[in-house]
Amino acid sequence: MAQVLADRRDIDFVLYEQLDMEQLTKTPVYKGMNRKLFDMMITEARNLAIKEILPTNADGDKIGVTFDNGEVLVPESFKKAFDLIREGDWTAMNEDPDLGGQGTPYLINFPTREYLWGGNYCLVNYATMGHGTGKMIEAFGSQKQKDLFLEKLYTAQWGGTMLLTEPEAGSDVGALTTTAVKNEDGTYSISGAKIFITNGEHQLTENIVHPVLARVEGAPEGTKGISIFIVPKYWVNEDGSMGDFNDVVCTGVEEKMGIHGSATCSLTLGGAGKCRGLLLGQECEGMKIMFHMMNDARLNVGFQAFTYASSAYLYACNYAKERIQGKDLTAGKNSPSVTIINHPDIRRMLTWMKAHVDGMRSFIYYTASLFDWMKAEPDSDQAQNRQDLIDFFIPLVKGYSAQRSFDVCVNAMQVYGGYGYTKEYPIEQLLRDCKITSIYEGTDGIQAMDLLGRKLQMRGGALFQAFANEVNSCITAALEVPELSAMADRLANALACLGETAQSLSKNLATPLIKTSFASAFPFMEATGDVIMAWMLLWRSNIAVKAQEKAKSKDKAYYSGVIKTAEFFIYNVLPVALGKMDAMNEGNGAAIEIPDDCFGG
Amino acid sequence: MAQVLADRRDIDFVLYEQLDMEQLTKTPVYKGMNRKLFDMMITEARNLAIKEILPTNADGDKIGVTFDNGEVLVPESFKKAFDLIREGDWTAMNEDPDLGGQGTPYLINFPTREYLWGGNYCLVNYATMGHGTGKMIEAFGSQKQKDLFLEKLYTAQWGGTMLLTEPEAGSDVGALTTTAVKNEDGTYSISGAKIFITNGEHQLTENIVHPVLARVEGAPEGTKGISIFIVPKYWVNEDGSMGDFNDVVCTGVEEKMGIHGSATCSLTLGGAGKCRGLLLGQECEGMKIMFHMMNDARLNVGFQAFTYASSAYLYACNYAKERIQGKDLTAGKNSPSVTIINHPDIRRMLTWMKAHVDGMRSFIYYTASLFDWMKAEPDSDQAQNRQDLIDFFIPLVKGYSAQRSFDVCVNAMQVYGGYGYTKEYPIEQLLRDCKITSIYEGTDGIQAMDLLGRKLQMRGGALFQAFANEVNSCITAALEVPELSAMADRLANALACLGETAQSLSKNLATPLIKTSFASAFPFMEATGDVIMAWMLLWRSNIAVKAQEKAKSKDKAYYSGVIKTAEFFIYNVLPVALGKMDAMNEGNGAAIEIPDDCFGG
Repeated sequence: MAQVLADRRDIDFVLYEQLDMEQLTKTPVYKGMNRKLFDMMITEARNLAIKEILPTNADGDKIGVTFDNGEVLVPESFKKAFDLIREGDWTAMNEDPDLGGQGTPYLINFPTREYLWGGNYCLVNYATMGHGTGKMIEAFGSQKQKDLFLEKLYTAQWGGTMLLTEPEAGSDVGALTTTAVKNEDGTYSISGAKIFITNGEHQLTENIVHPVLARVEGAPEGTKGISIFIVPKYWVNEDGSMGDFNDVVCTGVEEKMGIHGSATCSLTLGGAGKCRGLLLGQECEGMKIMFHMMNDARLNVGFQAFTYASSAYLYACNYAKERIQGKDLTAGKNSPSVTIINHPDIRRMLTWMKAHVDGMRSFIYYTASLFDWMKAEPDSDQAQNRQDLIDFFIPLVKGYSAQRSFDVCVNAMQVYGGYGYTKEYPIEQLLRDCKITSIYEGTDGIQAMDLLGRKLQMRGGALFQAFANEVNSCITAALEVPELSAMADRLANALACLGETAQSLSKNLATPLIKTSFASAFPFMEATGDVIMAWMLLWRSNIAVKAQEKAKSKDKAYYSGVIKTAEFFIYNVLPVALGKMDAMNEGNGAAIEIPDDCFGG
Repeated sequence: MAQVLADRRDIDFVLYEQLDMEQLTKTPVYKGMNRKLFDMMITEARNLAIKEILPTNADGDKIGVTFDNGEVLVPESFKKAFDLIREGDWTAMNEDPDLGGQGTPYLINFPTREYLWGGNYCLVNYATMGHGTGKMIEAFGSQKQKDLFLEKLYTAQWGGTMLLTEPEAGSDVGALTTTAVKNEDGTYSISGAKIFITNGEHQLTENIVHPVLARVEGAPEGTKGISIFIVPKYWVNEDGSMGDFNDVVCTGVEEKMGIHGSATCSLTLGGAGKCRGLLLGQECEGMKIMFHMMNDARLNVGFQAFTYASSAYLYACNYAKERIQGKDLTAGKNSPSVTIINHPDIRRMLTWMKAHVDGMRSFIYYTASLFDWMKAEPDSDQAQNRQDLIDFFIPLVKGYSAQRSFDVCVNAMQVYGGYGYTKEYPIEQLLRDCKITSIYEGTDGIQAMDLLGRKLQMRGGALFQAFANEVNSCITAALEVPELSAMADRLANALACLGETAQSLSKNLATPLIKTSFASAFPFMEATGDVIMAWMLLWRSNIAVKAQEKAKSKDKAYYSGVIKTAEFFIYNVLPVALGKMDAMNEGNGAAIEIPDDCFGG
């Protein structure tokens, strides 16, 4: 059967040839692990995904979740697959075995989740989302809280969520109105209404643990007065047993364009005056604690987007290799019809998709590997550099990947033509599902503002410099390779232009032109992402040039493809990014100056 | 109530200030008509759309069409609105009153359809699609055929379709297998299966007239052996009365991502051996006849795309002016929250949308007006020039508008944030519905090939030159205006670059590099469309600069918006198109050279 979720050859390339993952197993933290183990895990994830998870994906879309008097029901077929995911320990592999994990590198979550999430993100996320909830408790909870919640969240015995958004507080978290009043026993009475809560209610787990952002009575306005509480659906007694229903009532689920299998809930807390929460950390530390999980959450959403792209790309490849339509442009009039992969416009789309899918896989895996090296070598002199890279990359992993993954789905539909628009083929669901990733966990516009307004400005520009240093190492290596040196020159030029653009936008942030700069935040994020893609593809080519010499025939095509993909991107896409930088460097303020009244409506 | 379908102020600007439509009424063909009449028609179309059509749009999406044993049912609410459209004579206004039309300029179809189609394209198209069917009969039918079919098609007493696609013949029309065998009475027996037939079966009209592409037994292979037949659902007797069921059986409707109100049918012709057709024109003239309606059909699909964009843009404007979220970037920390139209990233999106919506409206209306001038002045020395412009513009109206209109919908969703992804708001339906326009009536990739492979090469490059002459007239005028001269310089530069790109792609078409050139067909179409947008926006600015001097305050904002929109596009978007041209001029062949085996799958 053709691959439809992830390209295993490319996964192996990124893990072992590009990132040299086995080096991790030489550090004390990951000692005793090896490639054989990782390979086995990836293969098992693939088998589970293909046999048990992917077959539920259409149910998720067509049946979706149903809401009935406070209860949310998922499609029947979800249940068996959910249990298999739990039983297979796929929910928090990188955590300590004591807490229900397997102690593997964080990086291994990614190839396995390419398959698992790729099979049915909505379903698998019921099992994996509690991991993020647990991470906050692990970092900021009391020992008692850890004992009560951690293992159950990491093993998906209980589900986890994040209650942030309210009707009038979306991107503007500080506007929230949910309140908390301290009780005599140290708990807090919570009262408020939250919306857009992913997995806010369902029957797959016996309990659901909600981290809730709320304001303690008398706390300051805005974000600085926000605290965070652990609010379980059923109260958890001191001995870990489950107590009474905790007055967290689901009042409805959203009907959405996609991710119909995901329960997007409206929740009322304390409608009957009986909702209690446990303070996590200290009062008014809510934003700090939530931001602790934000890097991980945003990395995950960027990766979720990528899994749709990875799948859409493979479906399009398979279709283009099978669908016969039209003659070859260079063949005679009476020649037979050919598969559409022979048509230039189809090849342009496939190569464009491949460039972005391969580039994003390398980029996201690379970012994930930095977390592992941070953990493996906490005292390394590389630690600050690694943290800088992570902080710089996160808004790009989320925002750029959400944007380009959607474009990959759109291109895949175009390869399919009319069939792609029908529900008979998987593309239109992938396209609809993928769109959410540009919106939730901070819209892509918010990511762009984070990149320009925070990350570029942190530590005197050190983050951009850390990034540029990495790119330059790659360029230096490629300059030594005759086949790659012209590409290396082009990337060096693009990096230099990007640096100038970063400076020109940054210098206006403390001036009245701040709004003009921020009107370029989004294209700046896009251009930075494009430079990163070029870097990843050139890095891959550095390896491929050497590897192809001794490769066998099938691998020769693979490595040649790696290099041609870099060539395509650097000659066809990077110039467009340069055009974008030219535009930003103009510093034109029309979008700010244009009168509000001229917008129709 | 805020505008949600079309911006009337901008419609008036394009019709009367930019295109000076009243000049048409000075020609004999349109004598006796005037602006007052046109304005009244537009206002009536708006009222009908808002009161009767738009309210049915959600039904179209949520209920959609249902298929039951060969019958296709549309939502109940469609029926009243359909009758009102027929009774109001909105189906073929520009045709002769003798044939059921009103003899108005073709151009007036566009503002009226911005409202009517904008209200519910799927519904209105049941009434307007027969117009295209009729046009073929009007041009190529016998007098008898015209007498039998024309008026009934133009008044939507009968519906019309186009039966082209088969499972193995989509973009490759020449591969079709439907056959026709001549009978002794001069009719033909038709046998075959067609798919993706818009409005192929429904109960809104008493009869449906299908133009069917088929091959007469013994005719050559490929497109040159294709004939076209008039195949009514119920046979039409010599006296015009309806006879027996003509063995055109609907075997199913597609379930699609969007346009759920549109019946996309599979039809079996002659399954019981009783399907007859009337030859239209001569045998083997099928492609020629179909292409006669193609300009009109593609213009319509491009315009369909645009109506989604126009609406999505207005919804986003209204939302951005109402939704309060976050503080103004330049205000103090304790300042009140503001409407999101104040945020730079929102303004960037709104201005980007406005630039494309206004630019596309001008471009499409302008293209439509050329048809009117052709009709009004058939012997003018401008006739060839006008035909050249039309032929050059059509693939762009279709392909570019489909692409950018979809992007407008995507941006509109981003302005709405999470709400935009829910079915509670209209954006997600607009986005899903709009997507079809990049696929049907020739995919956008086909349009791009038409532009590069045919239109650029026709008459020794005269079409591009005709286009360039028009742009240069606008540039010359703008160079005289201090406020616009810098923008004019930039447009002149972009036009020159585009010309060079056109030449560099064209010169390889007769060489082994033909595939490399065609791999750039799509970006070339995009870049040409971008230059056209810049031209349209500068043209509009030429008018606005003069008009704003004596304008009243509300109009001052409108005119200032026209100029600022041009500035935004020329400084922020046009450089990206230049980057695209740089890339094409490289002539990089990676997408062609990359080995097939490297594509995963």
